[in-house]
Amino acid sequence: MKILVLGGDGYLGWPTALHLSEQGHQVAVADNFARRGYDHELGVESLVPIEPLQTRIEVWRELTGKTIGMYVGDLTDPLFTYHIINDFEPEAVVHFAEQRAAPYSMIDRHHAVYTQQNNVVGNLNLLYAIAETNPDIHLVKLGTMGEYGTPNIDIEEGWLELEHNGRRDRVLFPKRPGSFYHLSKVHDSHNIEFACRIWDLRATDLNQGVVYGQQTPETARDERLATRFDYDAVFGTVLNRFTIQAVIGHALTVYGSGGQTRGIIDIRDTVRCIQLACENPAARGEFRVFNQMTESMSVKDIAETVKRAYPGDVTVERLDNPRVEAPEHYYKVKHTKLVELGLEPHLLSDTLIESMFDITKRYAHRVRLEALRPNVYWRDPTAG
Amino acid sequence: MKILVLGGDGYLGWPTALHLSEQGHQVAVADNFARRGYDHELGVESLVPIEPLQTRIEVWRELTGKTIGMYVGDLTDPLFTYHIINDFEPEAVVHFAEQRAAPYSMIDRHHAVYTQQNNVVGNLNLLYAIAETNPDIHLVKLGTMGEYGTPNIDIEEGWLELEHNGRRDRVLFPKRPGSFYHLSKVHDSHNIEFACRIWDLRATDLNQGVVYGQQTPETARDERLATRFDYDAVFGTVLNRFTIQAVIGHALTVYGSGGQTRGIIDIRDTVRCIQLACENPAARGEFRVFNQMTESMSVKDIAETVKRAYPGDVTVERLDNPRVEAPEHYYKVKHTKLVELGLEPHLLSDTLIESMFDITKRYAHRVRLEALRPNVYWRDPTAG
Repeated sequence: MKILVLGGDGYLGWPTALHLSEQGHQVAVADNFARRGYDHELGVESLVPIEPLQTRIEVWRELTGKTIGMYVGDLTDPLFTYHIINDFEPEAVVHFAEQRAAPYSMIDRHHAVYTQQNNVVGNLNLLYAIAETNPDIHLVKLGTMGEYGTPNIDIEEGWLELEHNGRRDRVLFPKRPGSFYHLSKVHDSHNIEFACRIWDLRATDLNQGVVYGQQTPETARDERLATRFDYDAVFGTVLNRFTIQAVIGHALTVYGSGGQTRGIIDIRDTVRCIQLACENPAARGEFRVFNQMTESMSVKDIAETVKRAYPGDVTVERLDNPRVEAPEHYYKVKHTKLVELGLEPHLLSDTLIESMFDITKRYAHRVRLEALRPNVYWRDPTAG
Repeated sequence: MKILVLGGDGYLGWPTALHLSEQGHQVAVADNFARRGYDHELGVESLVPIEPLQTRIEVWRELTGKTIGMYVGDLTDPLFTYHIINDFEPEAVVHFAEQRAAPYSMIDRHHAVYTQQNNVVGNLNLLYAIAETNPDIHLVKLGTMGEYGTPNIDIEEGWLELEHNGRRDRVLFPKRPGSFYHLSKVHDSHNIEFACRIWDLRATDLNQGVVYGQQTPETARDERLATRFDYDAVFGTVLNRFTIQAVIGHALTVYGSGGQTRGIIDIRDTVRCIQLACENPAARGEFRVFNQMTESMSVKDIAETVKRAYPGDVTVERLDNPRVEAPEHYYKVKHTKLVELGLEPHLLSDTLIESMFDITKRYAHRVRLEALRPNVYWRDPTAG
């Protein structure tokens, strides 16, 4: 099928585009290179060098004979958004094209406003472009498990059947997210649910856990196909950061007690989940939510896992938690819908971590130590 | 106390400013005159002529000796927002300064994006200005009962105690609003709750019902103090519109079955509620929600009430509902918190409607009939 991947130059957008192409789909990507721009702003870069998008696409064509279309532009520009939907005529749109780091959104007012405006307006433009062009297009939207926060009840997949004062209803699962970034995704989810209701759009909201790993079978075929690997305190996700810290002999930086528990997922499962969502679309008018994660782990358990796996001394340093989040909490998540569609999870194993150690060793000379220290504090509105 | 009323030139902001001033508070208003601009855009105007804000403030000073400060600017401009908080040093900020019409937000993509960007960014700027300047300032934010939608369970005041799979939690009440405008208020509510959590701000979110009426004791003192009275299909609220239709001999335009039930409130109660919220502030860190309504009525019952009260023939015309909403539904709302603080509701009575008839008769020659017809359709993304 024809699938348009928005944010197709990013950490997950690029491997997703390759995976969908490999599976025989006709793929185009769109990107405004905002993610590459954040690197310049923060003075950091991906541990693994990445090629320009043009090169990536050309290498893929050389290796496989498959072409990937490319659009350069910004979803907050409605002319661009309408153009790509009209021009490519996708059957599914996979929407990764949002600012995706909680700490980045918490730097200061400017970054909070940028994050919400960029994400919410881009997504609104996309909803209108689909509704006006072809409401049959399936929107596959990346949300985050962080939308839910850490409620004291089981987390269901987007909707909750509840009873209150003797009456029953099926409601959107109540959200209480932990950053202006996570809030932007909650706003998106509400907007998408409404668009499905009034325009009979079809949408799948993928509430994704923290992704780890850097390679998929497709990106591993040539180093010029590599996706980015972030280790800095703003864009680096926790397991990736711990892996790099272990290799370079830096203490693993655990925030607070480390009792914070999160849903996690292997990058290879992410791309497979997107494929499953695209190939099994939501019905017209359906707002469907999948919890795109395969297991839950606390931050200190993730640190322990890295410590056990690394063939050398690893220390753990506890830092004051720069975020505002519950140090210890209940966390039980339902995540069966993607498994029902055929996902076979790669659970966190020493094997995978070892492959991450190898990648890290190769590029350890590129690590900038100062980028590992948290420098954005939730309680300080002027942290940046 | 020192109270800053944002949107102080509007339908409710202006009477609120007068009421707070009359109660002895030191009041300043801020406005960007966006509401007057929408009139130009839509080719309509308030049934009752309104004076420039400068004149209003001067008349109030002449009559009472009380001064009201005035700031002209836009909350989406952070320099303006920080300036007014720094300069006026309010103890409470009453925030009416948002685009407030559901149909306006549904005209087309541009109006949806404008509404969400204007409302969400203005409110974010305000949260940061308070957090950075003086986190002790009490934010009194106007939300809407429309944030809840029409769930099949009792609507509580903002929070819900629930049990699920044998575990309990207190969660934000799940929302399922019915327009991009209502969604913008849901986004605001989530952002405010988070700001209270991370910065220990104090906030009261007033989920207000549909307001009716045009006079308060303060605005009635001089016709130059009148507040606006909208009857058009975009900004006119239902009871105000029916009153005007009755007087000019136009059929009352009921959308769909008329079984849609909503919370309603008298304009005199609105200004009293704001006063009560300001004088009884939320605690530091508290995100408090009041349902600011006094009774529930269906659209057809509102039409019947107007028909009974009007001394002449009144007909009802059923139009296809331009909105997407449940025609018949459960609707039971808890709204006791403002009563506990001292609100004595004015319930909808023939007396009040008669006073609205008098105002309408006086200005009936200003009615533009074509403005009464709905021209924004929820199912059509290009309605405008």
